[in-house]
Amino acid sequence: MKESVPHFYLSKTCPQSKARAGELSTPHGRVLTPVFLPVGSQGTVKTLTPAEIKGLGIAMILANTYHLYLRPGIKVIEQIGGLHKFMGWEGAMLTDSGGYQLFSLASLRRVSDEGVLFRSHIDGSEHFITPEMTVQFQESLGADVIMVLDECPALGSLAQMQSAMTRTHHWAERCRQAQRRRDQKLYAIVQGGVFPELRRQSAEYLTSLDFPGYAIGGLSLGEPKEVTFSMVAETTALLPADKPRYLMGMGSPEDVVEGVAQGIDIFDSALPTRVARNGALFTPAGRVNIGNAAYARMAQSVVPDCNCYTCRNFSAAYLHHLFNCSELLAYWLATIHNLSFITNLMREIREAVMAGTFPAFRDKFQANYQATDEQVRLNQKNKWPKSRRL
Amino acid sequence: MKESVPHFYLSKTCPQSKARAGELSTPHGRVLTPVFLPVGSQGTVKTLTPAEIKGLGIAMILANTYHLYLRPGIKVIEQIGGLHKFMGWEGAMLTDSGGYQLFSLASLRRVSDEGVLFRSHIDGSEHFITPEMTVQFQESLGADVIMVLDECPALGSLAQMQSAMTRTHHWAERCRQAQRRRDQKLYAIVQGGVFPELRRQSAEYLTSLDFPGYAIGGLSLGEPKEVTFSMVAETTALLPADKPRYLMGMGSPEDVVEGVAQGIDIFDSALPTRVARNGALFTPAGRVNIGNAAYARMAQSVVPDCNCYTCRNFSAAYLHHLFNCSELLAYWLATIHNLSFITNLMREIREAVMAGTFPAFRDKFQANYQATDEQVRLNQKNKWPKSRRL
Repeated sequence: MKESVPHFYLSKTCPQSKARAGELSTPHGRVLTPVFLPVGSQGTVKTLTPAEIKGLGIAMILANTYHLYLRPGIKVIEQIGGLHKFMGWEGAMLTDSGGYQLFSLASLRRVSDEGVLFRSHIDGSEHFITPEMTVQFQESLGADVIMVLDECPALGSLAQMQSAMTRTHHWAERCRQAQRRRDQKLYAIVQGGVFPELRRQSAEYLTSLDFPGYAIGGLSLGEPKEVTFSMVAETTALLPADKPRYLMGMGSPEDVVEGVAQGIDIFDSALPTRVARNGALFTPAGRVNIGNAAYARMAQSVVPDCNCYTCRNFSAAYLHHLFNCSELLAYWLATIHNLSFITNLMREIREAVMAGTFPAFRDKFQANYQATDEQVRLNQKNKWPKSRRL
Repeated sequence: MKESVPHFYLSKTCPQSKARAGELSTPHGRVLTPVFLPVGSQGTVKTLTPAEIKGLGIAMILANTYHLYLRPGIKVIEQIGGLHKFMGWEGAMLTDSGGYQLFSLASLRRVSDEGVLFRSHIDGSEHFITPEMTVQFQESLGADVIMVLDECPALGSLAQMQSAMTRTHHWAERCRQAQRRRDQKLYAIVQGGVFPELRRQSAEYLTSLDFPGYAIGGLSLGEPKEVTFSMVAETTALLPADKPRYLMGMGSPEDVVEGVAQGIDIFDSALPTRVARNGALFTPAGRVNIGNAAYARMAQSVVPDCNCYTCRNFSAAYLHHLFNCSELLAYWLATIHNLSFITNLMREIREAVMAGTFPAFRDKFQANYQATDEQVRLNQKNKWPKSRRL
């Protein structure tokens, strides 16, 4: 299907790296890339109203079909008029198919070519889901970008990962066959674990089917960071330049900078909002923990020249106090700060790409921003709560 | 001390009831009465930013010296520039002295004429506080209205309540002696339990000392509601007409209507915000619980003609879903609704008093608004977590 306005327009590619700047056109607005999508798994970006999300300059968010299928149920949202209306969000939206959650959150019962039998992580109830059903669910939810169902195991042997990849390919074709709505863009998901040969096979096979966008799944599941980005580089090298590339489930400040350098356009992660609720705030020098005693009497804001509502209005001492008392406002203030930080970072990255100065930007960022080993470990710990292999 | 603008101006008294309309003048703005003060015990009205509080049309809030003394400590707030600056609130503010919390929340060690020895409810640390210290603390915090330290036992015998009352009177005098700042108004607190004779003695003694405002303390601690309001009526009858009257710790919709009818000008209570976080929303027909299955698929808002952000933007089904998932946004949305409801109720009450139609307004409200026995019980249960007698 050809359209007058293409889904993705590539504005610029960095001559010295693989960084790209572009834009997505969706029924709910234009989205400049590279872009970070905050995660609203249950139909809410935790603590924020839709007006606040928009006020942060965020044009696109992510929601999870798995969570919404279990609660409140797809039918409830459909009857209210779709997920945009249900949660009051007027901007662009992407829904994950649930593949990742089925393999990380639910209790798996049986994976077959037909689909996935699983138990809800909430009440243990048993459910069976097919690739076709995940498309129907996502059509009812009504996001602008929807995802194929993928088999998404944690690290496994070459044979295990090959089997999962092959199944993911078949499911991708079935998802495309099942698609009825033409206003939603269905992205495929490249799998293959940490095996370059599998990543190559997966990228080549899926691109031969010509999807409107390609995601890279199954990374940051415990493998060393160098391996993660080497897989990203292997994969993006084989993806068509004129289609958007989405690195699933990664979105720390250090990861988006490196991901862009490897040719990624779209990121999502619960990390910025989750660590915020634990009192970890992004600063240009790295993450700091507001619970540290050093902040107990600090009259200045956490990042003095930050322009977010939190830093403009409150001392570090006040934030420290609110976290110390487990006050709900603390989680909101920290969420606003971290999402403001990462949204501004994406804007700066894009400006650098457009100006042809991204390599210098990346060098400067990486020289200043110190992600400690402990933080990297925590990132991963929360990403994969139960170690699960096929 | 005479001033050009009096602290309290009585605009109108209802000819058929004791209801009054007036206004308070404070260094942080004018406050129309009757007024309900949301509670921000720890320097935050739970879930709300200062901008949101103001946006609800709220002109005055309450904070608790006891909580702030323990965390983050009075000195921290003083060094940042006072409580207004610390929490970013530019409107009027009242601080409680801590009397109520010492007797309801802390572990009491010894009450003497000199002061109160207690253990922190947070870490068990031992502290000694005198009436003079509570004034110094409140001067450091910098609220517009501050309170005397009172001995505030739960229901006790006549002899016990008389002893507590007498001590409260002595402490009131000492608090006034200790006052250094002249820009803060120090209110006295009438005690006397459920004994009309004690209430009379307390009101007469304290008014003879000529405070700029009078509070009624020690009520709604388990006694029947009729007794509560009979004590209020006994007391307000003896208070000077030209001074504001503050009913401490009461502020359900049904209580503010009845309190105004008995001549009260100022209310505070954590109830509207606390029950909101438990999913209980105010409606013109009474409180409803959004967790009820009846709301699971309701496309309309909880109160369809309500003008609050929550009801303007979200279905009851969405609120039900957020509460069902324990999503943080739920607590904010419900808080906004309940504070909007009670703030609008206070405005309507005031308009009725000014228009001379308050008795009809009260009749209509009471005919529609059904507070169930269970709700009344819950109101009291949370007010006095540990049954405590002298």
